[in-house]
Formats: sequence, C-alpha cells, structure tokens
Amino acid sequence: MTATLIDGNAVAAAIHGEICAEVEELKTKYGIVPGLATVLVGTNPASQFYVRSKQKKCGEVGIRSFGYDLPETATQEEVEGLVRELGANPEVHGILVQLPLPRHLDEKRVLSAVPIEKDVDGFHPVNIGELGMKGREPKFVPCTPAGCIELLDRYNIEIAGKEAVVLGRSNIVGLPVSMLLLKRDATVTICHSRSHDLPGICRRADILIAAVGRPRMVKTDWVKPGAAIIDVGINRVDDPTAKQGYRIVGDVDFEEVKEVAGYLTPVPGGVGPMTIAMLLKNTLTAAKRAAGLIP
Amino acid sequence: MTATLIDGNAVAAAIHGEICAEVEELKTKYGIVPGLATVLVGTNPASQFYVRSKQKKCGEVGIRSFGYDLPETATQEEVEGLVRELGANPEVHGILVQLPLPRHLDEKRVLSAVPIEKDVDGFHPVNIGELGMKGREPKFVPCTPAGCIELLDRYNIEIAGKEAVVLGRSNIVGLPVSMLLLKRDATVTICHSRSHDLPGICRRADILIAAVGRPRMVKTDWVKPGAAIIDVGINRVDDPTAKQGYRIVGDVDFEEVKEVAGYLTPVPGGVGPMTIAMLLKNTLTAAKRAAGLIP
Repeated sequence: MTATLIDGNAVAAAIHGEICAEVEELKTKYGIVPGLATVLVGTNPASQFYVRSKQKKCGEVGIRSFGYDLPETATQEEVEGLVRELGANPEVHGILVQLPLPRHLDEKRVLSAVPIEKDVDGFHPVNIGELGMKGREPKFVPCTPAGCIELLDRYNIEIAGKEAVVLGRSNIVGLPVSMLLLKRDATVTICHSRSHDLPGICRRADILIAAVGRPRMVKTDWVKPGAAIIDVGINRVDDPTAKQGYRIVGDVDFEEVKEVAGYLTPVPGGVGPMTIAMLLKNTLTAAKRAAGLIP
Repeated sequence: MTATLIDGNAVAAAIHGEICAEVEELKTKYGIVPGLATVLVGTNPASQFYVRSKQKKCGEVGIRSFGYDLPETATQEEVEGLVRELGANPEVHGILVQLPLPRHLDEKRVLSAVPIEKDVDGFHPVNIGELGMKGREPKFVPCTPAGCIELLDRYNIEIAGKEAVVLGRSNIVGLPVSMLLLKRDATVTICHSRSHDLPGICRRADILIAAVGRPRMVKTDWVKPGAAIIDVGINRVDDPTAKQGYRIVGDVDFEEVKEVAGYLTPVPGGVGPMTIAMLLKNTLTAAKRAAGLIP
C-alpha cells in the first residue's frame, strides 16, 4: 500500500468536536439551541438508516432534532404542509427532506417549500447558482461536496492549479463539487456515462472525485500515480461471507487503487461521515444566522 | 484555409427572420407587442454602442424598445427604482441592465431588482442554478452561451460525448456555457488563468470555447486538428492602418488557427450577432410567457 488513507471518521470526529463547542457556547451565551427537522416519507430501509444516523449525531453534538415520519401514502399536500409548518417554526433552523421521495410525490415542489434560509442541504437552485458564480457565496454548501473539499483541505492537498476530474454529474454531488473545485482554482473536467475513454480522462486527474454509483469502477489504469482520490460511492455488493449477505463498497476498486494513488478515502469511513458532519455544521450556521450573529 | 467558417451574421439573420414572423403572429393573433427595456448608466462608449445595436435590432424584428439612459451620477436608489418600475410595467417583457455599471453602484442589488420572469439576460442565480441542474430548465438561457450552442447546432457539430474545453470561467460566458455543454452530454473541462499548461488542455478539445478576453491568445499549437472553435473574445488592438486607429480581434489567432481548425468563428461576425439574436429570442419568450401562451 502506497496511498495515504484519508480517514473520514477521524476528520468528522474533529469537526463534531468543533461543532459541539460552538453549540455549547450558543446555548450558554445566547440561550439558543440549534434545531434540525428531518422529514422521512415511507419505509425505505436505507433512508431510515440515514435519517436515524443524522438524528443520532445531532444528539451527540447538542443539536435538537425533530423527526417527522410520514407514511408511504402521504399526499403532496400533506408533505408540503408539514414542510411549510417547519419553515415557520422558529425552533427549527434546518429542514432536511430525505430523498428519494416516493414516486407519487413531486420532489421539486416539496423542496421548493423549504425556505432558503433553512435549506441546510443546499439543494435550492439559488444556492447552486451562487455556488458556481464568481463573487457570490451560497447560504449553504451541499453537504457531500463540502465534505469532499474539507477532506482535501485537512490533508493539505493543494487544489489551485491542479487537474481535478469529477466522475459523475448529479445535482447533489458531481455538479456542486465541480463548482467548488473551480472556485478553488482547479482546472475542472466533468465526465459521465456519455464520455468517451473514461479511464484516459480520469488518468489526467491530480484530484479525482468518483461519484458515479458503480461498484469498484475505477481501476488502477484510471489513476495517475500519486493522485488524491475521493470516493463518494456507496454501493451494495453481494458477499456471502458477510453476516447480512452483502457489503458496502465505493466507486473505486480500493484494493487495487491503493497501490497507485497518493491519497485515498475508504468506503465506508471516508466521505460518508463527512456528509453528516457538514449537515450539522450547516444547521449550526443556520441557527447563528437566524439569531443575527452572522450575515 | 482548411477551417469551415461559422458565419454568425448569416445564422443570426436566419434567427431574426424566425423571430420576425413570430412577433408578427403575436401582434395579429393576440394584439401583443413584445417589449424590451434597456437601462444604460453613464457614457461608456462600448456600452452605448451595444445598447444602440440592441435597440436597432429590436426595431428590425418588430420588438418595441424602451431606452432609459441615466447619467453617470445616478444613485443606487434611482437605478433600482427605475428597474422596479420597469418590472411593474406590463408593456415591458424583458429588462436589460447594460453592464458594467459605474463603480459606485452595487451591481448585484440592481440585478436582483429585475423580476426573474423579465430577466432576459438570464444572469439571476436561480437561472444559473437551473441551467446546471439535471431535470431543471431555466426560464432564460444567458444570451452569449445560448448563441455559442446555437452556432454549433446550426452547423451540425456533434456535442454529445465530445471533449469540450471552455477557456475562461466568467459568470456571463464561461460558467453557463460549460453547463450547457454538460447538459448536452459533452465531457467538459473548464480552464482559466490559474490552470497549468493551457495549450495542452485546449489541445484536447473537439470543441473549444475561447472566452478569456486576451487578444489572439489561442495559437495553432493550442488546437487539435479538425476541432470546432467558437471565439467569444472581443478585444481592441492598436492598428495604425485602421481609420479609428484600432481594430477588433478575438481570443483566437484567426489567421494561424484557421489552417488547423475544422470550424472557426470570425471576430467580428461570429458570436457577436448571435448574442443579440438570443436576446431578442428571450424577449419574445418572455412576452409569450407573460400572455400565458407557453409555460
């Protein structure tokens, strides 16, 4: 193994510590308790797991969490009504609608009901626009992209002037992380399922962000020796030796690529914990902003 | 010369013809006359020239233009007040604030006063966000980027799966044209003044958009043989043989590069006329939308 392991758990733990201290200060100095509301519709096991993890972490850092679980059959009006109610509740500083929503619901309309000052996921088009635009700053940076950059920063990996390649162009990872890298002065290439010669394109990267949702797609010959690789993938693959019959792997073939890369995040334990850490940070920011402590 | 010349004047003329016919139909069928208001502050000669060109073209296609020229000394309140008034005027379907504004004015606040349904320039952060996001469509696509894509399309230059390189990352060209190319399934690289080895990066391009504002920067060795090159640059260079003592050149060294490229836009007569054509098209769209004829 030549790659330095980027330890997302350790970085996330450090950030939790920082948030904890700030939350405590907010309570004692101003009597404010940051609050995060989660809205979960239906019984998707992965969604349930994510929401529970977020609530648990909120508890650990002193953020109050408000959990709303609606049945699979909830109507558009019910979901939007709840989101609007939470939007008006001054104890709720951040609102997280767990995606994906059941098919009969209009996701765009539900998300539009989240007031922009409580959009701690950072998915509002205004946030995405301001993320990309020079001279503008979004209210919130989407959590997973922010987590990727934070990992690079905490390991002192230079971004400015480097070739960054983003594999995948989703609204929640690929697109916003590309914009963050561009704002940090990287040369940014965005590639995807329609690109020709993905291995050749990825091999140009000093920094490679893999966010395509294909298990172990990135092989050794996709990687420039010494590159920093952030693996955003969370894929379930069959594994008869595991207790549940499956295990979680990333978009990068970790065993192969660790021999070539300079830095590499594991899955699990890389980007995953960072996403939650950034969500908590955004919630704290929302609470401070609501109190007029920051602009 | 091996490159096919992309004739922006001819394409723009064809679009003007299409718009003309639609404007005529709108008048006779519904009694609606599309209207574009221009707001010019100060006496910058280039800005005056652009605004006059836009007004002239409006006249040619039957769009009513409302010209507002404010003195260099206009206050923030005066400019915003005018923009808000135009926002409320039902005869005005599009509002164009000519940039740059004099230094003492807050550009961001002025632009925020333009209602999004009249933002025919497409510079509102919501428009930029929706431009980039999958499954979303902006109300208006910014004019120059839309013009670049239109030129590629009218010359049947394939975009999907191709390597597109955008040189420059401005809010008004580089960033939005990158997003448009991405939505059209290109592999997109954005490079800029902080990138290393610009010639090498540009040489990867099947489609190169030069939007960096440096006269004749792109040389033969920056160009893959056969590439399609869209030159967005408008740079003034000294020329003692010219009547005014200067002439206008692009970001591409036309004389050199035309021997290598497959397609090339001249400057002037390439992207320039397309920008105005797209502005007229957006104004027509705004008028149709205001009348409830399109969503």
